Amino acid sequence: MAAPPAAFAATAATVREEVAVRVAALKSRYADNVCGGTPGLAVVIVGERKDSQTYVRSKRAACEAAGIASFGYELPADSSQESLIDLIRTLNDRTDVHGILVQLPLPAGMNDEVVLDAIALDKDVDGFHALNFGRLAMAGRSPPRAVPCTPKGVIELLDRYGVDPAGKRAVILGRSNIVGLPVALLLMHRNATVTVCHSKTVNVGDLVREADIVVSAVGRPGYVKAEWLKPGVVVVDVGINAVDDATKKRGYRLVGDVEWEGALSVASAITPVPGGVGPMTIAMLLVNTVDAAERSFQHQ
Amino acid sequence: MAAPPAAFAATAATVREEVAVRVAALKSRYADNVCGGTPGLAVVIVGERKDSQTYVRSKRAACEAAGIASFGYELPADSSQESLIDLIRTLNDRTDVHGILVQLPLPAGMNDEVVLDAIALDKDVDGFHALNFGRLAMAGRSPPRAVPCTPKGVIELLDRYGVDPAGKRAVILGRSNIVGLPVALLLMHRNATVTVCHSKTVNVGDLVREADIVVSAVGRPGYVKAEWLKPGVVVVDVGINAVDDATKKRGYRLVGDVEWEGALSVASAITPVPGGVGPMTIAMLLVNTVDAAERSFQHQ
Ligand SMILES: NC(=O)c1ccc[n+]([C@@H]2O[C@H](COP(=O)([O-])OP(=O)(O)OC[C@H]3O[C@@H](n4cnc5c(N)ncnc54)[C@H](OP(=O)(O)O)[C@@H]3O)[C@@H](O)[C@H]2O)c1
Ligand SMILES: NC(=O)c1ccc[n+]([C@@H]2O[C@H](COP(=O)([O-])OP(=O)(O)OC[C@H]3O[C@@H](n4cnc5c(N)ncnc54)[C@H](OP(=O)(O)O)[C@@H]3O)[C@@H](O)[C@H]2O)c1
Repeated sequence: MAAPPAAFAATAATVREEVAVRVAALKSRYADNVCGGTPGLAVVIVGERKDSQTYVRSKRAACEAAGIASFGYELPADSSQESLIDLIRTLNDRTDVHGILVQLPLPAGMNDEVVLDAIALDKDVDGFHALNFGRLAMAGRSPPRAVPCTPKGVIELLDRYGVDPAGKRAVILGRSNIVGLPVALLLMHRNATVTVCHSKTVNVGDLVREADIVVSAVGRPGYVKAEWLKPGVVVVDVGINAVDDATKKRGYRLVGDVEWEGALSVASAITPVPGGVGPMTIAMLLVNTVDAAERSFQHQ
Repeated sequence: MAAPPAAFAATAATVREEVAVRVAALKSRYADNVCGGTPGLAVVIVGERKDSQTYVRSKRAACEAAGIASFGYELPADSSQESLIDLIRTLNDRTDVHGILVQLPLPAGMNDEVVLDAIALDKDVDGFHALNFGRLAMAGRSPPRAVPCTPKGVIELLDRYGVDPAGKRAVILGRSNIVGLPVALLLMHRNATVTVCHSKTVNVGDLVREADIVVSAVGRPGYVKAEWLKPGVVVVDVGINAVDDATKKRGYRLVGDVEWEGALSVASAITPVPGGVGPMTIAMLLVNTVDAAERSFQHQ
């Protein structure tokens, strides 16, 4: 994956085109189905966080571009958890909705777990249901209905750039349920030797120095020092951090966790921020939605 | 845990005594309950593997000793999977059965996953149901109803010997769903920095050399070389291997994965085989059964 950063944006675009082709095939084959063969994603947002609204807008736009129907629901921040769960139940029953995404974080006072576990397993396109997560964690059992989008995007990037993790040392920075932990599990299943670091890890740099693959999902600009990197290392930068930048109209710009300039001259490949994992995350949401639609149509 | 090996057997005995006290309390408080307040474990074995029969006998004897009712079921090796699942459904409905254990491995042709997922979540005292495993894997969600017995026993040994994994380097040898992976997840949740090794890992010795805690669950005698161990390391040997020994009546003896003699002089603590993790595994089964009974009695 010794590709220039621009290539990564192309990867997500390629995946989105592949999804569009699959969607078109479903529409022609299942035209007389209740939903005309159109995969449908319901996107639910509670409250008015600006960043969540931006993410939801990008996700819905990507759906439309691929021919996936997107159904938006905006609940006020002071909605009751019951009303949210009622909505989820209604969406669980709808035949034109194949995937349900509840944008996180939820307002304080709502219980993420209770809400996410209310989503029908088959429609859990984020893969956060505990049963799906259990299947992701265990080898040799049924695969999960869906793998969480960001970790799935990380693996897909490695795959498409011909990076085989087998036998490699992979160091994962961060252990969240959303990114760090599932990335670690997926790389372990791909036969990497995985070490997971977090805020209680001592001497993170010493561990990174041994890594053939580094995945950073910490959320701190400049956290990964270029001098920690072994020559030829593959770096996947999941972090998205806003740093002040007076030259920008918005007053800030987005950067990853890794010292970008320094890393560029050491790594054999590195994902840029913005443009690396972010677009892949959205592309994987589309893939998970089409997978769910194909399952519901019993498409072979 | 700089204790002589004998102390480890004492640990399992202590846990078993604690269980007996809890059982006695339940029997006196819930005497007028349908089952007289007695926790009950159903143990199901399919086929006639000698090792499985030995394990089942030890488990049932430990139940009886702690005052737990144990119900044994022996199905012939050629039973259908349906008949096994029918039995599990019956046990799921019984009010005097609080835990259900299906001894693995099942005969070829049966699907472990389908069988294990048929066990009611509340009675899954082995913790192998995918939903329980998902909860074990994820932090910050509801805890699983039960944590698998061997990994739970490993953590309990560390706890009772005052070994705090936080900030320590832990190297886990093996990544099975039964031992290696859940041990790794539990140590990560205890803030260790965890590396998981397996058959595709290159230079296992170099990784072990950096470890403050080594857990071996590979299943090969002498796999862990004494010269790999850092002075003061804590070694948990989960492996149980039969090696030929003409001086024994049975013609073999049981050993762990670790070069025992050499390791003794380097490690600050090491669990013996037999006698370390094995007895703790059985003790944890009793704990999980009493936990399940307390839940069913809604005991506070
Ligand atoms: N590209 C995308 O599509 C995408 C998707 C999701 C998230 N992200 C970005 O990825 C980053 C991580 O997201 P998240 O949801 O996983 O965040 P999170 O839940 O806050 O997790 C951050 C992880 O980093 C660890 N950490 C914090 N400070 C550290 C330190 N000094 N040294 C070592 N580890 C440290 C934390 O350790 P503890 O567990 O000990 O607290 C935690 O495990 C964020 O920048 C987020 O915006 C990007
Ligand atoms: N004390 C107890 O109560 C208890 C309970 C359960 C098990 N055990 C014992 O613990 C041991 C492991 O049990 P298990 O069920 O986890 O076994 P398993 O399913 O066979 O797993 C063995 C693990 O060791 C790895 N491995 C095999 N050869 C290796 C090598 N040369 N280098 C590095 N890793 C290697 C395997 O890697 P791959 O994944 O790449 O194949 C696998 O992950 C056995 O001896 C078993 O009898 C004891």
